Amino acid sequence: MRRTSFQGFNCSVAQTLEVVGEWWTMLIIRDAFLGVTRFDRFHERLGISRNILTDRLDNLVEHGVLERHPYQQNPVRYDYTLTEKGQDLWLVLTAMRQWGDKWEAPDGAPVVLSHDSCGHVSEVVPTCSHCGETIAWSSRQVLPGPGAGRGPAPLPVAP
Amino acid sequence: MRRTSFQGFNCSVAQTLEVVGEWWTMLIIRDAFLGVTRFDRFHERLGISRNILTDRLDNLVEHGVLERHPYQQNPVRYDYTLTEKGQDLWLVLTAMRQWGDKWEAPDGAPVVLSHDSCGHVSEVVPTCSHCGETIAWSSRQVLPGPGAGRGPAPLPVAP
Repeated sequence: MRRTSFQGFNCSVAQTLEVVGEWWTMLIIRDAFLGVTRFDRFHERLGISRNILTDRLDNLVEHGVLERHPYQQNPVRYDYTLTEKGQDLWLVLTAMRQWGDKWEAPDGAPVVLSHDSCGHVSEVVPTCSHCGETIAWSSRQVLPGPGAGRGPAPLPVAP
Repeated sequence: MRRTSFQGFNCSVAQTLEVVGEWWTMLIIRDAFLGVTRFDRFHERLGISRNILTDRLDNLVEHGVLERHPYQQNPVRYDYTLTEKGQDLWLVLTAMRQWGDKWEAPDGAPVVLSHDSCGHVSEVVPTCSHCGETIAWSSRQVLPGPGAGRGPAPLPVAP
């Protein structure tokens, strides 16, 4: 079943969901970040049906998030790896993981990150690209951007 | 239709998707961050059917992401606002917006952020909570966390 498309929304959150918002897709991307490349391994780790997995992988290849390279002929078999566009989903994945660790993991985080350059267990802190200070939802305003003209952008409502 | 539940996965990404991974849910949360509080306003901005909207709002209230307060009796009508748990989804939403701005917004970003404390248009940069430097997927290791014991955690696969 294909749900309503978000393609007509002039909103980058909606467009991201259009690519990665299907049920299962972010877990396939999680596994791709963890080094999974082959269909059978995704299948085994996720316990997902083969046709849903095929559909999701095809969709990610079509959107340029994964690329597919044959590693065997007769029958042909593929490795799936993240493109640069796919690698850029790391912050989305990490933000989801941290939220789940904080709010939905009563036994503690299943995995943690260690930062190579300092060698410590680390959480991601969002900072401002201009001043370098921490940024939070309560310390930002939302303004029309250069693409706001194309249709109703998701701007704040009057209180 | 209710898809397979991710509740049995010992993975914080899966648990986050269990709460916010349904089609439409992150756009409802987007609008809540933009100041929308009332059913009819969500309905009007999203163009979503009333029963799907009711289902998604009920689910978010049940999971403690939104809270509901009556603003009118006879008939009773509610305001929906983000709890602290809901406000904590800001980084997930922002990471999605930034990815969409970069990869799926050929006409430019529909909205941009301005950071209150420096007054400049800003992007969120992920930094390490220990050393403060920028952190990326290529500069981190994934290790078992305190909750890894409960079941197979989504650890890296052998190359």
